[in-house]
Amino acid sequence: MKIKVINPNTSAGMTDGIRNAAEVATRPTTEIIAVSPDMGPASIESYYDEYLSIPGVLEEVKKGDADAYVIACYGDPGLQAAREITTSPVIGIAEASLYMASMLAARFSVVTVLPRIKTMIEELVASYGMQHRVLHVRTTPMCVLDFERDPEAGMEMLRQEGRRAVQEEDAEAILLGCAGMAEFADELEKELGVPVIDGVVAAVKFAEAMVDIGKKTSKLKTYKYPEKKQMTGMLSNFSWG
Amino acid sequence: MKIKVINPNTSAGMTDGIRNAAEVATRPTTEIIAVSPDMGPASIESYYDEYLSIPGVLEEVKKGDADAYVIACYGDPGLQAAREITTSPVIGIAEASLYMASMLAARFSVVTVLPRIKTMIEELVASYGMQHRVLHVRTTPMCVLDFERDPEAGMEMLRQEGRRAVQEEDAEAILLGCAGMAEFADELEKELGVPVIDGVVAAVKFAEAMVDIGKKTSKLKTYKYPEKKQMTGMLSNFSWG
Amino acid sequence: MKIKVINPNTSAGMTDGIRNAAEVATRPTTEIIAVSPDMGPASIESYYDEYLSIPGVLEEVKKGDADAYVIACYGDPGLQAAREITTSPVIGIAEASLYMASMLAARFSVVTVLPRIKTMIEELVASYGMQHRVLHVRTTPMCVLDFERDPEAGMEMLRQEGRRAVQEEDAEAILLGCAGMAEFADELEKELGVPVIDGVVAAVKFAEAMVDIGKKTSKLKTYKYPEKKQMTGMLSNFSWG
Amino acid sequence: MKIKVINPNTSAGMTDGIRNAAEVATRPTTEIIAVSPDMGPASIESYYDEYLSIPGVLEEVKKGDADAYVIACYGDPGLQAAREITTSPVIGIAEASLYMASMLAARFSVVTVLPRIKTMIEELVASYGMQHRVLHVRTTPMCVLDFERDPEAGMEMLRQEGRRAVQEEDAEAILLGCAGMAEFADELEKELGVPVIDGVVAAVKFAEAMVDIGKKTSKLKTYKYPEKKQMTGMLSNFSWG
Amino acid sequence: MKIKVINPNTSAGMTDGIRNAAEVATRPTTEIIAVSPDMGPASIESYYDEYLSIPGVLEEVKKGDADAYVIACYGDPGLQAAREITTSPVIGIAEASLYMASMLAARFSVVTVLPRIKTMIEELVASYGMQHRVLHVRTTPMCVLDFERDPEAGMEMLRQEGRRAVQEEDAEAILLGCAGMAEFADELEKELGVPVIDGVVAAVKFAEAMVDIGKKTSKLKTYKYPEKKQMTGMLSNFSWG
Amino acid sequence: MKIKVINPNTSAGMTDGIRNAAEVATRPTTEIIAVSPDMGPASIESYYDEYLSIPGVLEEVKKGDADAYVIACYGDPGLQAAREITTSPVIGIAEASLYMASMLAARFSVVTVLPRIKTMIEELVASYGMQHRVLHVRTTPMCVLDFERDPEAGMEMLRQEGRRAVQEEDAEAILLGCAGMAEFADELEKELGVPVIDGVVAAVKFAEAMVDIGKKTSKLKTYKYPEKKQMTGMLSNFSWG
Repeated sequence: MKIKVINPNTSAGMTDGIRNAAEVATRPTTEIIAVSPDMGPASIESYYDEYLSIPGVLEEVKKGDADAYVIACYGDPGLQAAREITTSPVIGIAEASLYMASMLAARFSVVTVLPRIKTMIEELVASYGMQHRVLHVRTTPMCVLDFERDPEAGMEMLRQEGRRAVQEEDAEAILLGCAGMAEFADELEKELGVPVIDGVVAAVKFAEAMVDIGKKTSKLKTYKYPEKKQMTGMLSNFSWG
Repeated sequence: MKIKVINPNTSAGMTDGIRNAAEVATRPTTEIIAVSPDMGPASIESYYDEYLSIPGVLEEVKKGDADAYVIACYGDPGLQAAREITTSPVIGIAEASLYMASMLAARFSVVTVLPRIKTMIEELVASYGMQHRVLHVRTTPMCVLDFERDPEAGMEMLRQEGRRAVQEEDAEAILLGCAGMAEFADELEKELGVPVIDGVVAAVKFAEAMVDIGKKTSKLKTYKYPEKKQMTGMLSNFSWG
Repeated sequence: MKIKVINPNTSAGMTDGIRNAAEVATRPTTEIIAVSPDMGPASIESYYDEYLSIPGVLEEVKKGDADAYVIACYGDPGLQAAREITTSPVIGIAEASLYMASMLAARFSVVTVLPRIKTMIEELVASYGMQHRVLHVRTTPMCVLDFERDPEAGMEMLRQEGRRAVQEEDAEAILLGCAGMAEFADELEKELGVPVIDGVVAAVKFAEAMVDIGKKTSKLKTYKYPEKKQMTGMLSNFSWG
Repeated sequence: MKIKVINPNTSAGMTDGIRNAAEVATRPTTEIIAVSPDMGPASIESYYDEYLSIPGVLEEVKKGDADAYVIACYGDPGLQAAREITTSPVIGIAEASLYMASMLAARFSVVTVLPRIKTMIEELVASYGMQHRVLHVRTTPMCVLDFERDPEAGMEMLRQEGRRAVQEEDAEAILLGCAGMAEFADELEKELGVPVIDGVVAAVKFAEAMVDIGKKTSKLKTYKYPEKKQMTGMLSNFSWG
Repeated sequence: MKIKVINPNTSAGMTDGIRNAAEVATRPTTEIIAVSPDMGPASIESYYDEYLSIPGVLEEVKKGDADAYVIACYGDPGLQAAREITTSPVIGIAEASLYMASMLAARFSVVTVLPRIKTMIEELVASYGMQHRVLHVRTTPMCVLDFERDPEAGMEMLRQEGRRAVQEEDAEAILLGCAGMAEFADELEKELGVPVIDGVVAAVKFAEAMVDIGKKTSKLKTYKYPEKKQMTGMLSNFSWG
Repeated sequence: MKIKVINPNTSAGMTDGIRNAAEVATRPTTEIIAVSPDMGPASIESYYDEYLSIPGVLEEVKKGDADAYVIACYGDPGLQAAREITTSPVIGIAEASLYMASMLAARFSVVTVLPRIKTMIEELVASYGMQHRVLHVRTTPMCVLDFERDPEAGMEMLRQEGRRAVQEEDAEAILLGCAGMAEFADELEKELGVPVIDGVVAAVKFAEAMVDIGKKTSKLKTYKYPEKKQMTGMLSNFSWG
């Protein structure tokens, strides 16, 4: 089966890391197509970035070249729209990490990048009904690409915040709140002694599971194909039907 | 003062209706700049349409040519991102209608277009904390542009659903769940005998109020200016900083 | 238009401050009628005070001498009852501050008077569905009239608590949780660098907005005129119908 | 022990019915003092009535002549204020009925008077955290005093609504949403085959229980005695301290 | 009347303490039957212990030898099942303590045993709709039987945590989160100056109240008698019907 | 890998059906161990049955003979306790079905057996934070074993209720609220045209996914191994440590 993992930002290095995490986690017969869209932000650290990453994400889903799609940014940008334009399952890494964590731990914390996205993640968690499980959304002074540029500093930062989460608020699992943190998950789990959930891994595994059993996105109502529609200007190639 | 009302879809007729509603509601000294973006969907009836309308909305806000911005689509597309790129107040018509209705009625219903957007509006209402006020999100078999094409049928449809809301669920106000319904508000209010809230009017009035007293969007954290960022491909002119 | 701002307590000095704040915020053509009721508590710092302020508030609304009414106490005392006895809009300063803040900031804190009213404000916030927005209801050791007696100490107290809210919990706006704090809003906003919302100003501006467009309180059900009713004893002049 | 049951309205007939229900339910050694205040509305069917009943309720509590107080109106008017002015337990009949019902049935419905108070009761239920238990607040076209004037019609109305609650929504208990319905409880329970909870009975029994074990209202913070306060005008005898 | 208080664990010493607390609180004519089941855990400090205590609890309820049943463990183990197999009222000490506390205090904290049961109690509180009232579930390093073995240390621990709850979070009442803490309630209440609620006492008093007025568990739907059912193996004597 | 699927009831026929569903869904290299406990109820249709099935479930988990455990009853009986006694993942079929459905459909309904378990499932759904997704818990007049005895009638019943869910409430997926319904899933999905989620299949697939990547239950706090504990009487073989 083919699972397409879409890194909504355009950093090739980060896409490589995501591909690697996905390939390690999936079965040999599962083909991982990890891509960055042709357009969009170099990284995602604001609502502005997030919304502008969505056209690129949708373009990748529209290609229809996979059995399932994973949106590999912790804001799950464009998730519901992606579900409208395919019958294949589409999974966001935030939702996947929350559901997987809920099956392994009673209470947990998210560790993510800059403080400004704390509210964004809190609202996302609430929209999934998971606010009773999440103790704290912890932020760091590092932006997304800092983790790529200086992985050692990144690991140290995650270690510190993860440790504080475990010790100060009894976090029983740690959720990595950025697709660029995949590479740190295993070591962090060993050091902290609690499950560390990387959303990319969670999502590709759930994708594999759902493709195995032939599950498809419901097209009854909310996720029906979009209405036929003319798009104009720069976005004209997004016209539908 | 200048209030820019952005119709996120590219239907010029609908933008005219919105402009008209806004001008009638505001003071003579308030200048209404009603625009459709250069790019985007002809109308918005899905998550797909909604997300693809956001770049156009943001482009209009980035021009920085107004004292306040109103996003005139009942999904409030791109609202939080728009707040990041300006210090002027930015108001969505859904939130404005919900807050105004809450000051006039204890319980109310929304009447909107196609059934598929019911979930979208329910989630939006919940994200504003207003689910205890909203009795029902009522949909019609008409799409956005049907209301423009056949206003009489549109009015009849709103009348029917509005009446059912009042009679069957005791809706104490009706919220028009689409910016293209502005022209029907007054007649409907007279017929139904309860407040009928058009979000465009609610939003421009709140905008006027906040500009009058010099209120600005908080730039402390969530709505800080976006991080400096390279955008690539088709969206490169959205690069920031 | 005439907007009547009712200070539910009987402190004339505070009513003057409220009038001033309202007049500065509204248009020259808007007439502010700021009053204290003939009966009631000198200030409001408990449920006891709050409930006993309501008859006076209702008496002022019953006079029917304005196009809109603002209840200028952060408990919004008697708000729903006031809506029953007029078709004009009636707005509480707590609700107004919460709605305005929600259009300017993602998360905020309230700074108010004595610790004992913390629960009261928390329950009020929850009843408006705004608990996900409010980080903290911060109290001070000062009672309502202390702010009038010693404005400098009052300003210093607000400065301290406001600063802690901004620095310790990232409050993106500060809501002044007492009508007697109006005069401190501007200076505080300058010092703290985040929007400081005075509910009196928010409410009179929303009142102006709703009167402009002719919006009325829904009389369908919850806010219908009270049933015809004999009141006895001291309250006999409150008989209805 | 003495339990004072305050009927917040001034209908003597209804007070007699309440006294009777309370006396039948309590132990012979428990003295029931059932009173109507000297001032206030003849009955309570709106927020207006409810708020205007509170001064009378508080006056009765201030007399300090009982070991516990019950507020016998299904809006629990003035409950928190009453707790401020005594150390004795104060119980509202709505809260008492909800807690007792929760120990006997998984889901239940309230049957009450006029449609206009539906919202009021829904908000009250929510403020007690009991909305997940309450299936429906059912109203009747009868006002409070109709039940006194024509008990047969009242009983028939309760029977009809109670039966519909049991049959249509599987209500596992019925809560009588008005203190004037006490006399119908036993017969209704026999006919419907599910617990019928009269709040007056529930409240006096909880009061007896708490007085037996010497429990007092917490005076730490929210329910501290009111601040010393001058009241003016008609309410001057409510001055405190 | 007979009230059976079932200590779900098999510690005889703790059952004695529970019996004593119940007898002191109830009327002389109320007979307290305090029992430990024939089977089950020596104490309850995990979900494992809790679920394994339930068969023993149900066996005691099945005997049908009382007018009401109290389940004296702060997880309310087996409560809903117990309600299915009797028409007598069945009350859990956690729910009883929460309802009683809610009638005496606006906000309160629970003090309980080992940290691991914090989540369990939080979820229980939420299932009763009481999370808005509970400030904090405070744990101690002591297990259930430690309180029996070393009551002085137990008292000191409760004093410390209770004091912190009062001073740090303004807890207006303290709820004892373990049936084995009954003996400390009175002294603790004196020292802390806020109501200290022992669930055993709260539950037996509510039981007395409900038996007095003949209230029975609803058998309409959720708490109907179990379906006829064969149980096999070790549990065969639990077969029903 | 070995996944043990525990049918908490002792019906061998139903265990066969569950095994079959699990084997069809999993990979050839995954060994499914489907068991019924040695003790417990013949079927589960009440809280009584559910709690009495838990010792048998825990005994099966204690054997430690699998890489993951699935509890195949839609009440997820004993789930948290099972997590305490193993480091392997333990998954309930209700939670699994809810999470999987949430990745495929915006709103959905559950179809289950007898009316009496409606409340039980509603509370379970709420405890997982999923109440905003579930439109309706639909019951049938058939008990668990009726579906085994008369599969045709069972299929017809599911078809009817499923169709009503789709047509009347726009359910975008159907969740089978009983482990004994697994065999009907595929046909039902074809007929209804929306995803039909069998919790057994969902759970075994999630189990496979989590075992693949070596995820373990967090032993930090809530799901720590139980405290050392003596169990007495019939349950003595459940003593721990």
